[in-house]
Amino acid sequence: SRTGGHLGAGLGVVELTIAIHKVFNTPDDRLIFDVGHQCYPHKILTGRRDRIRTLRQEGGLSGFTKRAESEYDPFGAAHSSTSISAGLGMAVAAELSHTDRNVIAVIGDGALTSGMALEALNDAGHANLNLLVVLNDNAMSISPNVGAMARYLSRARSEPGYLRAKEQFESLMRRLPSGGALVELLERLKSGVKQIFIPGMLFEDLGFTYLGPLDGHDIPALLSALSQAKRLEGPVLVHVLTEKGKGYSPAEMHCSRLHGVAAFDLETGEPIEPPHGNTFTEQFGTIVNTLVAQDDRVVAITAAMCDGTGLTDFKRHHPARFFDVGMAEEHAVTLAAGLACEGLRPVVAIYSTFLQRAYDQVLHDVCLQQLPVILAIDRAGVVGEDGPTHQGAFDLSYLRMMPHLTLMAPATFHELDAMLTHALTLPGPSAIRYPKGRAGIEDAGPLTTIADGRAAVLRAGDDVALLAVGPIVSAALTAADLMQAQGIRAGVMNARFVKPLDAATILQVARQVRLVVTVEENVIAGGFGSAVQQLFAEHHITAPCRAIGLPDFFPNQGSRAQLLTHFGLHPEGIAEFVVQQLAAAPRPQAAVETLASSHTLPPVDH
Amino acid sequence: SRTGGHLGAGLGVVELTIAIHKVFNTPDDRLIFDVGHQCYPHKILTGRRDRIRTLRQEGGLSGFTKRAESEYDPFGAAHSSTSISAGLGMAVAAELSHTDRNVIAVIGDGALTSGMALEALNDAGHANLNLLVVLNDNAMSISPNVGAMARYLSRARSEPGYLRAKEQFESLMRRLPSGGALVELLERLKSGVKQIFIPGMLFEDLGFTYLGPLDGHDIPALLSALSQAKRLEGPVLVHVLTEKGKGYSPAEMHCSRLHGVAAFDLETGEPIEPPHGNTFTEQFGTIVNTLVAQDDRVVAITAAMCDGTGLTDFKRHHPARFFDVGMAEEHAVTLAAGLACEGLRPVVAIYSTFLQRAYDQVLHDVCLQQLPVILAIDRAGVVGEDGPTHQGAFDLSYLRMMPHLTLMAPATFHELDAMLTHALTLPGPSAIRYPKGRAGIEDAGPLTTIADGRAAVLRAGDDVALLAVGPIVSAALTAADLMQAQGIRAGVMNARFVKPLDAATILQVARQVRLVVTVEENVIAGGFGSAVQQLFAEHHITAPCRAIGLPDFFPNQGSRAQLLTHFGLHPEGIAEFVVQQLAAAPRPQAAVETLASSHTLPPVDH
Repeated sequence: SRTGGHLGAGLGVVELTIAIHKVFNTPDDRLIFDVGHQCYPHKILTGRRDRIRTLRQEGGLSGFTKRAESEYDPFGAAHSSTSISAGLGMAVAAELSHTDRNVIAVIGDGALTSGMALEALNDAGHANLNLLVVLNDNAMSISPNVGAMARYLSRARSEPGYLRAKEQFESLMRRLPSGGALVELLERLKSGVKQIFIPGMLFEDLGFTYLGPLDGHDIPALLSALSQAKRLEGPVLVHVLTEKGKGYSPAEMHCSRLHGVAAFDLETGEPIEPPHGNTFTEQFGTIVNTLVAQDDRVVAITAAMCDGTGLTDFKRHHPARFFDVGMAEEHAVTLAAGLACEGLRPVVAIYSTFLQRAYDQVLHDVCLQQLPVILAIDRAGVVGEDGPTHQGAFDLSYLRMMPHLTLMAPATFHELDAMLTHALTLPGPSAIRYPKGRAGIEDAGPLTTIADGRAAVLRAGDDVALLAVGPIVSAALTAADLMQAQGIRAGVMNARFVKPLDAATILQVARQVRLVVTVEENVIAGGFGSAVQQLFAEHHITAPCRAIGLPDFFPNQGSRAQLLTHFGLHPEGIAEFVVQQLAAAPRPQAAVETLASSHTLPPVDH
Repeated sequence: SRTGGHLGAGLGVVELTIAIHKVFNTPDDRLIFDVGHQCYPHKILTGRRDRIRTLRQEGGLSGFTKRAESEYDPFGAAHSSTSISAGLGMAVAAELSHTDRNVIAVIGDGALTSGMALEALNDAGHANLNLLVVLNDNAMSISPNVGAMARYLSRARSEPGYLRAKEQFESLMRRLPSGGALVELLERLKSGVKQIFIPGMLFEDLGFTYLGPLDGHDIPALLSALSQAKRLEGPVLVHVLTEKGKGYSPAEMHCSRLHGVAAFDLETGEPIEPPHGNTFTEQFGTIVNTLVAQDDRVVAITAAMCDGTGLTDFKRHHPARFFDVGMAEEHAVTLAAGLACEGLRPVVAIYSTFLQRAYDQVLHDVCLQQLPVILAIDRAGVVGEDGPTHQGAFDLSYLRMMPHLTLMAPATFHELDAMLTHALTLPGPSAIRYPKGRAGIEDAGPLTTIADGRAAVLRAGDDVALLAVGPIVSAALTAADLMQAQGIRAGVMNARFVKPLDAATILQVARQVRLVVTVEENVIAGGFGSAVQQLFAEHHITAPCRAIGLPDFFPNQGSRAQLLTHFGLHPEGIAEFVVQQLAAAPRPQAAVETLASSHTLPPVDH
């Protein structure tokens, strides 16, 4: 309740975590939590109790498992469905080194809808290795679970346990006279009967020995099943039923809302600070809801992030046009491609970091075929407390290289609206990326209406031009104010389009200044600044172009404001960088002449 | 036999293609071939018979389905396992527009090992839409199929058909007296008996109505099953058994070798031109085989491309250290991450275009955790006849942005050897990319031994510096010769490392010339040239840096040589580009001074 975090998931696995640590000998046995957001009890039990209140804070414990943090975290996680693959690798390694070791992967039912987990089940099921998969089935990923797998598990949960049915059957068999066609038939059925009563036949079909389902809050039952699993040879799947938020009634009652929380009041479960409101996420939800009313080509797709991407109202009002495919980003994007083939305009709402899972589908299925899919990319840029695994630091780079894609980033809510409307007019694919929350929006000042592919020059200035993209434009404007006080005339441009660039406007601006500095919430490698540098090279621009952005490492957790400051992406950081660069940059002849005719270099205070 | 191509797959589905076109009304019904390499019979039947001999040639028919080519190709393909997602999208669109339309996805058993197909099955199985999945089961993807799914299908193939078993069971039931515990039990079993005899229970569990298995070369049987499937409501899976290469005995006997072929002799099935030999692929196979003998940390992983990546010998000699995971690139990379956690040094051999599927796993599981996984990326750069879907045009860009990764490209076989050896010494992840075939290698000239992270200056020259990476270094050397004849002094550098760049050497070279031109077989956006431009910006280099590389669109098919020439990546193209740039570039003051002190601008002949 003090730090916020992923509450419900951890509460659901308290007993399971205790039981696993009782039966298995970690860290020598390898225990991998899929996603890792349910690992708080595990952290408390493995030497991190003292630091648990630093969770997700700058310098504190990670909200996920992390190799660098503890030997009890053999595999770092955060993106879902990696645990079986990693666990299989560890089991193979144990076999190659003739080490007697158990590998345990704890994976949720939601994560089983991701293809990666199914690829791993398929591979693990035919390898005769000691891999234990604990299916932590709470019938809930982030949102309620979807798909045939969910329905299958739901059926499995309600069927009688295998062992009881087997006993009944064998008792009947003992009471039969021997001989006759009927008994012969029953003998034939005997080997098949297991298949009738085992709810986990699907997993048995894939080569796993299936145990369960069992009550995941019943420690003796867990100890018994896990001990049995430990003794069995080959891959085993233990199906455990848990309740998200177990033991804390506000979390039991509102498990979706209390999945990921800010600091809250322990008595009521209510957040201590009211939700911010006016986030890009909410704005997106409002706009897409308006657009679908005007344009019946619009459909919306999400991958288990209906609430997180702001689509809850859309789902309620337009259920036939809303598709939650589960944690299946690859399928989500190509499903959209199929819809677009038929004249629809699918909007795929997804977090930047998770869209990485569908890189090939965006490239090969959408862009190559020039299909009018709209990617609405939330949590782009710095995300904060979720840490390095969740930063939306790469999307401008991984999307900019894709032919045919129109790539946009709104600086304001109004622009998000305009860009979505614009995207619907495009004959080909587009992507719109925007950050978590609302940081900086208020400061952005009035912006003109978006025109097709055009950047907006917000402020003139002939010393330096700040070319910014996304809501960080507002920081660039403030930085320009700060520099003005030092006598530096800084222009500010809101680029809006990363691909294709508004080359005419950018080149015009660049020819009037001594220095260009690009500002983006994305890694510098291959991002917006890189696009501008390439443009300058192609057009013989002599003004140096420096890029400010996220660094070439995975930023640690911290608040969004802390991280932006840390990387110099706040007004003071931008101003300081410009002052340094103006001092260091050589003066190309042409630029020097321009300067000489207008003013002398202002004194810089650094 | 004239053009080469994917032979066996198409021969295996002649009857199936005819039957589908008989039962369904294409193009109004949507017929999607997964991967699409089995679509030659379909192309012949849908108005492209006249042009079939232009297959895979420059300007000719694509070797895959392609939307731009025919209305009978509703979805373009080439990467596997997209058909169910796209088909589901089309089925949803039909429902939304109240259109009575059938959607048919034909998918191979190999493609079912890919997570994306399983995500789509999971989603399609719970949507009550008219989607027909035809499982074209030839027990063979590119290499023999692997995994639990393959074993499952193999069992399904050998089990008695459902209908016959059901008849037997019901006949026995009729002969029973009524009443009693036994009959009661049998009644209970009745609803379960289907589960015993249906070989496709796994698909039924996922929500599909399962029909089959049936002989995929028996047209009446196919017509009957497809007609039945057409009448059924909801998702249906028809399981068809086919033989790859059917009807052409050389292809039946050597189905792996005749999967993808060059032009061959129709009588014997032997290639008309002997295989080239001395490809990067073979060289990789030889080296990795040597390395594992010296270093027992080495294991090799492939995703259904054992032959294609040169690992056949490795597999034979080191079966316990070899892992073919099927068409499951995501799992392949994270399996490697798990192995690396335990001190092994997994080498993941994969094609550039297919590694796109594992972008997130390389970033989130390998690079973030700094695990020493070695990516051996084959078919990087221009691939030729397979066309736009297979170009390895993006890997330098999508890998360069990843923190902690060492990214290399050998210019020669010797360097491939040295880079693999070097990669084994690194504490973190690395990637080595090399193209299809052997183009240009002979010409590269003697190169010095690789040193840690160092580029090699091959030729001095103070007009222009050509910074090249990969075997295209040889084209740069020849281009320098061509320019010398025109009086231009061109230096040539073999960069070797794309990340981290050998900044010291590059900056030293750059400070001595008027112009720098980077040369790479990768898109310009975000690639090697982009890295150099960024370096120059950070170090105030005034010499302009222009990039030559692949364009910002998806290059069409053609031979590798044709395409390289088309994009100016041949010696004449490079020389011509440099001459143009030298004429156009402004002369920064410093550079002009340097030039003035050494020589006057040579006459250029353009």
